[in-house]
Amino acid sequence: MTAIHKATPEDAPRILPLMASFHAEEGTEADDAHRHNALMPLLDGSHLGEVFIIGPRIAPIGYVVITYGWSIEFGGKDAFVDEVYLRPKVRGRGLGSEVLLAVGRYLAEAQITAVHLEVDHDNTTAIAMYEKTGFQMRGRYGLMTRRLT
Amino acid sequence: MTAIHKATPEDAPRILPLMASFHAEEGTEADDAHRHNALMPLLDGSHLGEVFIIGPRIAPIGYVVITYGWSIEFGGKDAFVDEVYLRPKVRGRGLGSEVLLAVGRYLAEAQITAVHLEVDHDNTTAIAMYEKTGFQMRGRYGLMTRRLT
Repeated sequence: MTAIHKATPEDAPRILPLMASFHAEEGTEADDAHRHNALMPLLDGSHLGEVFIIGPRIAPIGYVVITYGWSIEFGGKDAFVDEVYLRPKVRGRGLGSEVLLAVGRYLAEAQITAVHLEVDHDNTTAIAMYEKTGFQMRGRYGLMTRRLT
Repeated sequence: MTAIHKATPEDAPRILPLMASFHAEEGTEADDAHRHNALMPLLDGSHLGEVFIIGPRIAPIGYVVITYGWSIEFGGKDAFVDEVYLRPKVRGRGLGSEVLLAVGRYLAEAQITAVHLEVDHDNTTAIAMYEKTGFQMRGRYGLMTRRLT
């Protein structure tokens, strides 16, 4: 069983390089300053999200960013798996499912009504893993976004 | 120009029937108790969202529920149009676009990075209206949800 630990501001130097690797892999347009500014409020105790380190704190093998919102449909506070990343070398061993199930238990205990995530329609491996851990595609709906900044 | 007003707990008796009409129209499974419990924390000042009444406070023609979250990708606080409803009789006059643009200005002033919404892929009228007000479909991605309660 791989442990997950709630991250604190002291963990930033170990999370930021993992996040840079994730963004490079995903093609997300974000530089180091963007990542620092987006991550620190969550480590500093924002009520809008929290971060978990996967594996040993001194040498993490990945991280999960959980963000919180509210949903009339689900009837209360809900959550997003905003980012989840595992180092390439530790993939394919079921760690991703293990982490998502642990996060699900944590959120259920905190009375969160539902947890969502966005997945690339072409990423069939990820979709299968998410389905195995209880996620269902909201296939009827599409997500639309308007950037404001 | 149709005004939008931030709703307070005193507006609940006028918002709840509109919300019931919206849920009936959408086929959302929610009863009056569910709606009351999901709405009141937002009217009571939760940091996770707020509600706006469309039109006169004593006889609203609709409402918008905005919820807040956080996004590493967008680099800060983001928002969802969780629900937007206009009475059937006032539709087709461009009021929906007007309301979304007003909400967008409000969110941009509040330094919100991006605003999202979910739309039924078959609802081409809504998609066209959202595109006109600056929303773009995140077509590459699907939303997956796991209920926890």
